[in-house]
Amino acid sequence: MDIKSVQKRLREFAQEREWEQFHSPKNLAIALAVEAAELLEPFQWLKEEESRQLAENPTDYALVKEEIADVMIYLLRLADQLDIDLESAVEEKIRKNAEKYPVALAKGNAVKYNRRES
Amino acid sequence: MDIKSVQKRLREFAQEREWEQFHSPKNLAIALAVEAAELLEPFQWLKEEESRQLAENPTDYALVKEEIADVMIYLLRLADQLDIDLESAVEEKIRKNAEKYPVALAKGNAVKYNRRES
Amino acid sequence: MDIKSVQKRLREFAQEREWEQFHSPKNLAIALAVEAAELLEPFQWLKEEESRQLAENPTDYALVKEEIADVMIYLLRLADQLDIDLESAVEEKIRKNAEKYPVALAKGNAVKYNRRES
Amino acid sequence: MDIKSVQKRLREFAQEREWEQFHSPKNLAIALAVEAAELLEPFQWLKEEESRQLAENPTDYALVKEEIADVMIYLLRLADQLDIDLESAVEEKIRKNAEKYPVALAKGNAVKYNRRES
Repeated sequence: MDIKSVQKRLREFAQEREWEQFHSPKNLAIALAVEAAELLEPFQWLKEEESRQLAENPTDYALVKEEIADVMIYLLRLADQLDIDLESAVEEKIRKNAEKYPVALAKGNAVKYNRRES
Repeated sequence: MDIKSVQKRLREFAQEREWEQFHSPKNLAIALAVEAAELLEPFQWLKEEESRQLAENPTDYALVKEEIADVMIYLLRLADQLDIDLESAVEEKIRKNAEKYPVALAKGNAVKYNRRES
Repeated sequence: MDIKSVQKRLREFAQEREWEQFHSPKNLAIALAVEAAELLEPFQWLKEEESRQLAENPTDYALVKEEIADVMIYLLRLADQLDIDLESAVEEKIRKNAEKYPVALAKGNAVKYNRRES
Repeated sequence: MDIKSVQKRLREFAQEREWEQFHSPKNLAIALAVEAAELLEPFQWLKEEESRQLAENPTDYALVKEEIADVMIYLLRLADQLDIDLESAVEEKIRKNAEKYPVALAKGNAVKYNRRES
């Protein structure tokens, strides 16, 4: 995905509709959290195993696909409005996680894992 | 960003640590919503205008950059585990939004805009 | 719990600190969502069965108790700021749910249940 | 509100429908976060001042009232399933907040305030 090019298209989409006034980082962060919860909703009563078979339910699968897109779109907009380079942010975090969770210590370790990752 | 290549690295990162057992779509959707809320947190008491100047506060800016990365990482993991193509999901949604919000109707329209977009 | 009396104490707590300026319904709704996600966080990698045994882990149990209080406090503040009677809102919703989910139809029905309740 | 009596009614409501199997603390914490986000949604594009006038929009006001009830219902269920006394949890947290935010230091202090409260 050419992140910057998609961000440019989304920015123009908002500008044409004069929506930039609503797209403050604060509001976009709210919208992102709302969409993330909508993405979570179809999973709420499923057993974990059922969630691994979601593709067998075409209605929920299509819904989840759309919610994933919504989250991504707001994430792209928010990073764009804050002038944060999404790709380098991800690279930096992957490096940090590798240091924080060395294989030898983290392996299969539910207890350790059950600590906040961020 | 080469989405599929980053997803492959994240998948291997999880496999090496035997974390795939925890990474059911249900759990990843929870983790994504939790990270989205952590991203929202630094904005909660800011005025909208202050949120547009976030870069002036290096501590919060660095925090937000890291939370944006966390959201992206879980989004990539979730899409990967569900075998959903993130790029085509986004393209499809952009097309849908263009149909749903024609410029002539949506322009600067806070009332219309204040309806759920997804 | 004397809802209105606790709301009065929380209102005075905010007034004494001149925090009413930050406590717009919008900001309180954000704070509530942020706290609800913090409450969710300790559960994210647990199996459902483990979550039923949370009391066996005193640290997480104390944390969850505190997050439950945070959610309740913001809910009380938000209802107060909007002049919504929490008790009658709950009674009304219980009545609505009883109509929407008659025992005969809803019994043990995961499929039906797996539709949004609200 | 007689918290324990409402909790008993909600518990019986779930038992009659054989929904206790779905109501693990983990699932209830998810449902609570999902409802909190639904409560946040109508505020997402509003200016703070508009959010203070929500009652002027009867449709959104009724919606928000219902979402507030949903959050409260899941909070009551979760506290009940975890055997956490909601009232004493709130009292304890109010005491803690009073110590953490003495009036002299916290007064009108957006900077201090803009630190996580929990």
